[in-house]
Amino acid sequence: MKSFFKVRTLKQVMALVDTFDPVEQETVSIDEAVFRVLGQTIAADQDLPGFRRSTMDGYAVRAESTFGASESNPAWLTLAQTIPMGKVPDFALLPGEAARISTGGMLPEGGNGVVMIEHTDQVDDTAIEVYKSVAPMTNVIDRNEDFKKNETVLPQGTRMRPQETGLAAAFGLDRVRVFKRPVVGIISTGDEVIPVTEAPAPGEIRDINTYTLAGLVRGGGGIPICYGIVKDDEDALFTVCKQAVESCDMVLISGGSSVGVRDFTVDTLTKLADTSLLVHGISISPGKPTILARSGKKPVWGLPGHVVSAMVIFQVVVLPFLNRLQGLSNPRGAGITIPARLSRNIASAQGRTDFIRVCLKTDDRGIVAEPVLGKSGLIRTMVLADGLLEIDENLEGLERGEIVQIIPLTR
Amino acid sequence: MKSFFKVRTLKQVMALVDTFDPVEQETVSIDEAVFRVLGQTIAADQDLPGFRRSTMDGYAVRAESTFGASESNPAWLTLAQTIPMGKVPDFALLPGEAARISTGGMLPEGGNGVVMIEHTDQVDDTAIEVYKSVAPMTNVIDRNEDFKKNETVLPQGTRMRPQETGLAAAFGLDRVRVFKRPVVGIISTGDEVIPVTEAPAPGEIRDINTYTLAGLVRGGGGIPICYGIVKDDEDALFTVCKQAVESCDMVLISGGSSVGVRDFTVDTLTKLADTSLLVHGISISPGKPTILARSGKKPVWGLPGHVVSAMVIFQVVVLPFLNRLQGLSNPRGAGITIPARLSRNIASAQGRTDFIRVCLKTDDRGIVAEPVLGKSGLIRTMVLADGLLEIDENLEGLERGEIVQIIPLTR
Repeated sequence: MKSFFKVRTLKQVMALVDTFDPVEQETVSIDEAVFRVLGQTIAADQDLPGFRRSTMDGYAVRAESTFGASESNPAWLTLAQTIPMGKVPDFALLPGEAARISTGGMLPEGGNGVVMIEHTDQVDDTAIEVYKSVAPMTNVIDRNEDFKKNETVLPQGTRMRPQETGLAAAFGLDRVRVFKRPVVGIISTGDEVIPVTEAPAPGEIRDINTYTLAGLVRGGGGIPICYGIVKDDEDALFTVCKQAVESCDMVLISGGSSVGVRDFTVDTLTKLADTSLLVHGISISPGKPTILARSGKKPVWGLPGHVVSAMVIFQVVVLPFLNRLQGLSNPRGAGITIPARLSRNIASAQGRTDFIRVCLKTDDRGIVAEPVLGKSGLIRTMVLADGLLEIDENLEGLERGEIVQIIPLTR
Repeated sequence: MKSFFKVRTLKQVMALVDTFDPVEQETVSIDEAVFRVLGQTIAADQDLPGFRRSTMDGYAVRAESTFGASESNPAWLTLAQTIPMGKVPDFALLPGEAARISTGGMLPEGGNGVVMIEHTDQVDDTAIEVYKSVAPMTNVIDRNEDFKKNETVLPQGTRMRPQETGLAAAFGLDRVRVFKRPVVGIISTGDEVIPVTEAPAPGEIRDINTYTLAGLVRGGGGIPICYGIVKDDEDALFTVCKQAVESCDMVLISGGSSVGVRDFTVDTLTKLADTSLLVHGISISPGKPTILARSGKKPVWGLPGHVVSAMVIFQVVVLPFLNRLQGLSNPRGAGITIPARLSRNIASAQGRTDFIRVCLKTDDRGIVAEPVLGKSGLIRTMVLADGLLEIDENLEGLERGEIVQIIPLTR
């Protein structure tokens, strides 16, 4: 009987993330940069805003001119000019004066506040009444209140959410350097696996992992390339693997990784040039029979054939490596977890990290995590699941009513 | 002074979601279908799995043959044939027999359990010792245990996560009907707004909303089409609006929606053919000056010019409409919210729903929501934010230490 000879803990595998390097960069339009990882550091090319702006439609004033104004005792202000949008006002505002201004307009010299139009009445062409006093800097954004010129705005390695692309635009970048989307090769193995378009005979099953893994790669920011199904034939697997490793930044092989009568993945990987086995088994459930090799600079994974195990391993183990390849500054920062109350006791083996599929429900006391029961070969359990619950290797289980942290699954 | 004449509550606006219809459908490969919304109902074309499968590498047995087996008292089983992958075993398993099987292999007639290879020793070519008994159906997935033939697997209107695309593959669909991605036109207005490639003079500001909104549309499943910047000119805005409404499924116009000296958006929308104003102002902060019109069958939005207000309104108000357009069965189901402890008191006006930007931190008692201070004109506040906190219109505020629900912002 063969045995796993490089079983690692999850923590040990995570420590390998930084031993791989990010892929190359490219320059794209900021529109295309959204959800990509920034490859450059962005600094403010100028103050933002570059001038004192109104945040309301109303009247620019010297705030002092409104002090004491109220419904019963309005302030009477002389109407100066209307401030045109996008222009520098060509006059200074004197005490006792008001100038019509729109949201985003530039305050004239002397102006340090804006009275909302709702709190005024226009008396005639030359005067308004103000019913509410404003403190200095009310309804105004001061010059450089958002960002100061030369300030670092976004560091390299930032995931560009919509607001970060907007920020790049604010500082004049219509194109930015981002890391390329890592290309991830996907190979399904197994004599029992047939293409989706065929009708399975007894003993056969359609290929599922190619599609779940491709979706996960896409959702994680990579570009999947599917190499289809390879039968349990070492030469065939070697040929496809070699091609995938040459063409891709990372390779996922599902099936054939367990310790048993067939262990084609390890045998094949060890034959590839410049390739070393880093991990052969992880003390995790589901997904123990996971393989990680380094081929040149590229991670090559042997994932379990069970669809659920492969998905869990992707989310928990592979994703941080994909994040690292695409240059994310915090590749292991899995993001937000959701605290929830556990609906029932769960047993767990010590010495291994368990990931339990849960669905999230709400009752009058908050969010409840309800374990989804079922074997890891059942895809139904992943369809029912909203997230994963990690049970530490040092715990023997968790008790009903405990507050646990749930890792949300891709929307 | 003009006034908002159709101010609505958030709830009233949400009630309008279902008055719009989903866009058309198209058929795409399941690979492309990921993260799209399913346009058809999928039923199981066959049992899944179609046969009794092993979930482990080991030996198929009649479970009864192993009863009582232990380390000190192993069961001695006769080795029958090895079961080939993807084939129907051409023999039945007798009591006292074991047949070598791999993960995913089909159990022979009579077989109702699998002993893991780790719990056996091969004595010679004809016999094994089994060190652990297995209960019936251990390490086995039974025929139709995942799904039964003809069962509804995925209803129309489901968002296809990676597991749902895998499920479609399992039932032989290499192409599925999905709703088209709604095309969303984006128009920025304002004399003060200049293209990102130009250097702003005092009084001017670069266009940010085009990029934040395009990113939000993309993240929400739509296809953004950017119409650029339109100066404060009613004819120009009318021309571009008309073109956008004709070409797109929804239109977003940012800027120029407030009650003031300029209210081009309402004036323009009311001139478009077959267009009626549904909402003019929402009792919400930030983002009160939001407009919704129906032009033919299409929603047209006037969004606030402030970048933060426009983003909050998109996330809270526009997104459910975008979900509806793309056929999602639960368009208002905003998804998961995150319970967190509020770090400080927040005041709020009654009669309006407030959305407070918060960043999430963790301390030894759990997740803390820390309000991000700053005016809604400051994009910095959105860059610092992880989520939004909704304060109901009936509340005057929230207290430090309260457990609140946070709506996560796009990753």
